[in-house]
Parts: sequence; C-alpha cells; structure tokens
Amino acid sequence: MDIHDLMINLQESGEGKIVLLVSDGIGGLPLAPGGLTELETAKTPNLDGLAKIGVQGLSIPIKPGITPGSGPGHLGLFGYDPLKYIIGRGALEAAGIGFAMTENDVAIRGNFCTIDSVGNISDRRAGRIPSDESANVVAKLRAIKISGVELFVEPVKEHRFVLVIRGEGLGDAVADTDPQRTGVPPLDPVWHNDNSKKTAEIAKEFFNQAKKILANEPKANCLTLRGFAKKPHMPSYREIYGLKAACIAVYPMYKGLASFAGMELVGKPTTLTEEIDTLEKAWQDYDFFFVHFKYTDSRGEDGNFDEKVKMIEELDKVVPRISALKPACLIVTGDHSTPAKMASHSFHPVPTLIVSDLARTDATEHYGERDAVYGGLGHFEAMYLMPLAMAHAGRLGKFGA
Amino acid sequence: MDIHDLMINLQESGEGKIVLLVSDGIGGLPLAPGGLTELETAKTPNLDGLAKIGVQGLSIPIKPGITPGSGPGHLGLFGYDPLKYIIGRGALEAAGIGFAMTENDVAIRGNFCTIDSVGNISDRRAGRIPSDESANVVAKLRAIKISGVELFVEPVKEHRFVLVIRGEGLGDAVADTDPQRTGVPPLDPVWHNDNSKKTAEIAKEFFNQAKKILANEPKANCLTLRGFAKKPHMPSYREIYGLKAACIAVYPMYKGLASFAGMELVGKPTTLTEEIDTLEKAWQDYDFFFVHFKYTDSRGEDGNFDEKVKMIEELDKVVPRISALKPACLIVTGDHSTPAKMASHSFHPVPTLIVSDLARTDATEHYGERDAVYGGLGHFEAMYLMPLAMAHAGRLGKFGA
Repeated sequence: MDIHDLMINLQESGEGKIVLLVSDGIGGLPLAPGGLTELETAKTPNLDGLAKIGVQGLSIPIKPGITPGSGPGHLGLFGYDPLKYIIGRGALEAAGIGFAMTENDVAIRGNFCTIDSVGNISDRRAGRIPSDESANVVAKLRAIKISGVELFVEPVKEHRFVLVIRGEGLGDAVADTDPQRTGVPPLDPVWHNDNSKKTAEIAKEFFNQAKKILANEPKANCLTLRGFAKKPHMPSYREIYGLKAACIAVYPMYKGLASFAGMELVGKPTTLTEEIDTLEKAWQDYDFFFVHFKYTDSRGEDGNFDEKVKMIEELDKVVPRISALKPACLIVTGDHSTPAKMASHSFHPVPTLIVSDLARTDATEHYGERDAVYGGLGHFEAMYLMPLAMAHAGRLGKFGA
Repeated sequence: MDIHDLMINLQESGEGKIVLLVSDGIGGLPLAPGGLTELETAKTPNLDGLAKIGVQGLSIPIKPGITPGSGPGHLGLFGYDPLKYIIGRGALEAAGIGFAMTENDVAIRGNFCTIDSVGNISDRRAGRIPSDESANVVAKLRAIKISGVELFVEPVKEHRFVLVIRGEGLGDAVADTDPQRTGVPPLDPVWHNDNSKKTAEIAKEFFNQAKKILANEPKANCLTLRGFAKKPHMPSYREIYGLKAACIAVYPMYKGLASFAGMELVGKPTTLTEEIDTLEKAWQDYDFFFVHFKYTDSRGEDGNFDEKVKMIEELDKVVPRISALKPACLIVTGDHSTPAKMASHSFHPVPTLIVSDLARTDATEHYGERDAVYGGLGHFEAMYLMPLAMAHAGRLGKFGA
C-alpha cells in the first residue's frame, strides 16, 4: 500500500478548498556565507503574517542533494513520486509548448541539423538558427502526410521543434536518431519492442519526406529525432484525491504538467495579478487550485539577486487577496530552489508554509529558509505535501480502526 | 534487508530494560492558532524533568498527513510497518474484546439486523439494541454447533458481536454478507479462493441456524457478517528483538494488539495506579514493558480540553515511580494525536521522549509539541522508535565490520 492507495482509500468529500501557491525556485542562498537569502532579504509582511499563524517546514523536492528540473519538481509537489513517474523527454517538450497530448500520441523532440554533400552531419544544431526562421521551416514540414496517422509539427525555440504522431498502436520504445556527433549521418530510428515498430517506420518515413523538403535550406537541411515518449500514465487528481483541480499558470510548461495530473487549465492570465483575478473568478468551481508564479525562478536563473528579491515582494503583495478567499488550506512553496548565487536550479530544500485551522502553529515568525529549518513540518519529501494538504483541509478519513 | 532483518541480526542480550509508556492520543492542538496545546498547558514537572535529561522528537504515526486508528497507530509504535501489517477488521474486533485468537481462527464482525416478513433488511443495526439485550441474544447463538469446527460468539456493544470459527484449513477471503443497504436480504458469504470455501460454507450454515434461533426476536431477528480475518502474521518481539515483552493495559483492544506482537498480558489493572503497581511487581520478569494509558485519548475524543489537561497531569504524577525502577530506556509517547479541538484522532505528529544514559541530550526543557519540533530525535516515522529503544537500551550490535 503506497501513499496514493492511502489517498484513494481515505479521501472524503468536503467543502474545504486547497490553494497550492508555487513560487518557482523561491528557495535561495546568501551571496556570502552567513548572509541573508533572497527570501530573507525581501520585505514580506503578508507571508510573515501567515508564518505566525501557520506551520512551516522544508520540502525536499526529490531526495537530499538532488536538483530537479521543472518536470520532476512539479510532479513531486503534485504528490507523484518523482522517481516513479518519469515523464519522457518528448512528452515534457510537448507539455512545454502547451500541446495537449492524447493517449494515442507519441511526442518526439526534433532538432534541425546541417548535413554536408555526402549526408554526414556537420552541425548538430543547424547553427542555432533563430526561432522565427526555424518556425518557417517547421511550417514547410506540415506538408508531410503519412497514411494511417495524424502528424503535428510545432516549433519550440531556435533549432528545436516537436513532432507528435497520433494513431492507434504506437509504442514509444524507439531510439534517438541523433548520433551525438558530427561526421556521420543521422541514425535510423531503431525500435526496441514490437509495439514500437510502427512508430519507428513512421518516423523513418517522416525523416525521408522531410529530407527532400529541407534539401535546399541553407542550414536546416536535415533533422534528428529524440526522446520518443507517450503521454505518462498518471492517475488523476480526481482519482487520487477526489478533487476537482484547477491550474492557473502563465507558462505552457506548467500547464502541460498540470494537465498530466488531470487539472483543468483555467483562464488565460499573463501576469500574477491576472492569475489572482482568475483564482477569484473560478473560486466556486473547483476544490483545488495550483497557482504558479514563474519570475522568482527566472530572476534566480539570471543570477540577479536583487531582482529575485523584488519578485518575492511582488508575490507577497497578492497574498492578502488569496487569504481573503478563506481557503481551508493555503500552501506557499516552490518546486525547488534557484539561488541567484548559482544562477540555476539547486538541490536545497524549499521553505514551505501551510495555513489552516488545523495547523499546529510553530514558533516561526518569518517565511524563509532560516525559520523553516525549525518549523513544525520538519524536513519532508515534497511528495508528502499533498497528503498534508488533504489532511489540513479536513478531507481525509482515518486509516484503520 | 529491512528494519526487522536488521533487528534480528543485530539484537544482543542485555540487562537493560525498556519501558514504552504510551499515553493514547497525547498530542494535541491549541484551541486558537498560536495558543498552547493540552500538553503544553498541563503542569508536568516530572515529564519536563525527563525532557531536560533526555532527547525529544516528533513521531509520525504512519506517513505525513495520515490519521491512524488505534490498530495501525500501535503497530507503528510496536515497530511494525503499519502499511505492511494490516490487521483485518474481524481480528481487530476480536482483539478489542480481548479474545485470544489462535492460528486456526477466523474472526468475523457480526451485526444484528432486523428483517421484514419477506426476509429483506429493514434496519441494518436492529434498532441499536442495548448491549445487555444483545448479550442475551448472543448467548442463544451459542447453541449453534457445526461439525468439524469450534464456534465462539461474543458480545461487543449494542447490535455488534464477534463470531470466531476455529478449525483446520480455514481461509479468510470471504466477502461481507452485509449488503450495506435496506430493502434487500443479507448476502450469501462468497469465497474468493479455494482455501476460503470451507469458511464460507460454515458461515452460511451458521447464518441458517441463527436465523431459526432469532426468528422470534422483536428486533435482532437476523444478522450480517463482515470483515472475515485470520490472526495477522506478525513476527514476535522475541524473534525480532530477542525481548521478553509484557503488556500492561486496562482496555482489551490494546491487550489484543500487544498479544499479536507476542507480548504477555500481565496483571488485571483497572487504573493507572494499578498499572504502575503491576509494572513494579513484574519488573524482574520481563525485558520490555508496554504500558498503556487510555484517558488522554478519551478526553480528547470528548472534545474536552481541560479534562485532557488533567489526564496528562495524572500521568505526570506516576512518572517518578517508573523512573525509580531505573529502566535503561524509558520512552514516553502516544500512538497518535487526539486534539480536543477536533474531538477525534488526528494526523499531527506526536511528542516523543527518550530517557537513557545513551541519550544525546538536546536543548528542550519541556515535554511538548513546540519543544519536540527541535528535539534531537527530529521527525521520524513511528516504526523506527523500537530500533531507537533497542539502541538506547544498549541491546544492538554493530552493522557490518
């Protein structure tokens, strides 16, 4: 019996709503040892007010020492064991551009490359052609037709695109065609099980037709295919928790990840303020709200400590609007840390705050790394946050008599 | 290799005695955020004295967010993975009335019900007949004889009773006969594997004979059978830890749970004082003592904050008598929290204190939720308490060279 089995067995219907406010990459580091982190530097009177009445702790995204990408980082927060539920690279790329995959799809990451006159790759990234130029080439590939399947070709960024093959009986056990070096031609797509033979054959046919179409392109005159992946098999929020769940996010990647969990994508917000507008409007219609704030991560990735501090202060300003809705359980957390000092995601655990009538208030008075260390939630793996959310919202029954 | 394998391999004989003092449901909540819990409100000079010389932490009964019943709550404390060792409902009910099951038994929860003239259930609980009336009806059922097996019928409370079938080759994969609704007759007992066919046939024969006996009862004129369960397969304390273990408890449920772990039931105490008398008398005869105090849970379940505080103060008064016996390792904990604010078991972790010459004393000075958060034991799953007890009693060897 695992934690999902427990949730399925113990879930109870209830009125209590849950808000999971994810400030991407909010955890940080002091620029010099002993200094303050971005979150500790920011003026956050509203979050500190919540810390006083709530309970805090440190969320370990995957396992100690492991830095997550956005995929596993969010899967953990969403309550999926990130070491068990692996989203294939093609499916993650499709999620990243907001492509809604179906059960019949295989998604593949495509790279334009340059080949020489004898067909050997001379540049694996086609000179990193600009995104708009690449999008034009992608449009040409939409002329490709293969009987029995539907094809979708979507631009990503620079030399990258997504190919989705939709049809019956398509496995995803197909090897990459990128030889990972120059001076050799792209590989044939090799299938690893019978289910995937058809997929490989279609990929080969796509490649052959594409090669003709691309023949006269100055740089993007060929392509490689990588990360063949079906939509991940994940039980939905409805099944696991009995929750009608909404995703409120600006960026396609997070919408894609939320849709894998069966969340509905609500509104089309483009700013944090619009996200909270959306939350207010949708309040009566859902039990659970995932609200995603991107810019704490972005400024961390930029290595810009001061701007990350400002983004945290922006977040703090909208907190009273969320509290005013009186969620039974409000969680403030991040999917990982993104210290400006490192200008990248990191392995450090994430300050996590739960506000609820059932919270056992701890002694912490500020939302931040230093306080979270001795908070009442202790140090816990992110995948246990959803059980804690359900418990604090009064939506779980008792295990055993 | 799991934690039981480690214990089996590393256990060493020794003189050091272990006392596991379980104050049922001792953990709590403040009535308003930021206030004091029951345990923090209680005047507990003796427990606080132990906190100063011992080491504290928070025990997570099952997993974060999960509220345990008494069964899984105690199994965790006893060192069994509560998600692996599941006690069937019939066996738990039998334990609850102190029935000593053998390997040849299948225990079943019985409900008296009322059927109408055509045999359909009109009341699934037979009007919740009073316990003494129910006991009289149970006595009549003892006339039932079925060749090849021994039958035990024992009253529980109101319309509930326990049926135990004792015999060779009895499986417990038999479905409930309670249709969970009125207007239909009780279901036949359906077996799910060949081992359980005999059990189902005996249950059917019991039902047929019982129906005749009960025909003229005004309310309890029929019955349903639920939760068919054999005694759980659990390695004993002797096997896992090499401990001769005693259970000192007032209530049958806890005696039953302890007997599943192979503990001997010592004395017949009816009060906390008598429990400690029993402990003193049995001190030379056992290595391990589970002492159970019920009333912290009872008053929590009543939603009575002040009375729960008083019960904790009662507990505190007997602590010097336990310390005077000089156990090598004294543990004070609970099987779960029962906040008066919720008037029910809860998911909150439980303040847990270990006193031992080998304890690495921490900075905590009061036994309670707020101090336990930053205690030296950290936040740990209850199933690791027994390994900690063994270690603090000097009863575990080194793992590996």
